[in-house]
Amino acid sequence: MLKVIAEDFIKIEAIEIVLPLYRELVEATKKEPLCISYNLYVDEKDPGHFVFVEQWPDHAALDVHCASEHFQRLVPMINAYKKAEPKFLLMADAFDEKQK
Amino acid sequence: MLKVIAEDFIKIEAIEIVLPLYRELVEATKKEPLCISYNLYVDEKDPGHFVFVEQWPDHAALDVHCASEHFQRLVPMINAYKKAEPKFLLMADAFDEKQK
Repeated sequence: MLKVIAEDFIKIEAIEIVLPLYRELVEATKKEPLCISYNLYVDEKDPGHFVFVEQWPDHAALDVHCASEHFQRLVPMINAYKKAEPKFLLMADAFDEKQK
Repeated sequence: MLKVIAEDFIKIEAIEIVLPLYRELVEATKKEPLCISYNLYVDEKDPGHFVFVEQWPDHAALDVHCASEHFQRLVPMINAYKKAEPKFLLMADAFDEKQK
């Protein structure tokens, strides 16, 4: 199991532009057969700080996602409005057993 | 809905000490009636970088968690082995509709 946190930092004046792009990205990604979960959140303290919390079966599934048409098309459109570089955190379960 | 990412940075030599403390904290927290989800992950690049991904119905529920006996007892025991200050990120859904 692979857990991913991906953080975007978007210019405040571009939030309304990127929201429909994010919406399309999330909707298309949720339809990927290998996607376990893929949700987008926004920092309570910064409306331009968007945070994906993702779950994939393995790294290969994440690679398929990153190579998808929707990812390759939409992510550069979103990144055009970034105010800082995105951050990525790839994680494993801290314990072995299945979690709630 | 409140999504929380809480990051701990633990000294490498203390990982085996904190793991049972984390296990007790996760097991006790999952039993809290207001807990929607509470899982602990570890950074693939840093075995001392532990990341909680949490979901609560609202801020009041998080306050109840932080005031719980298990939190008040175990978190200071874990923090005794920190190598850097913990980080917290409180987030809302980026969209209004229910997510997968």
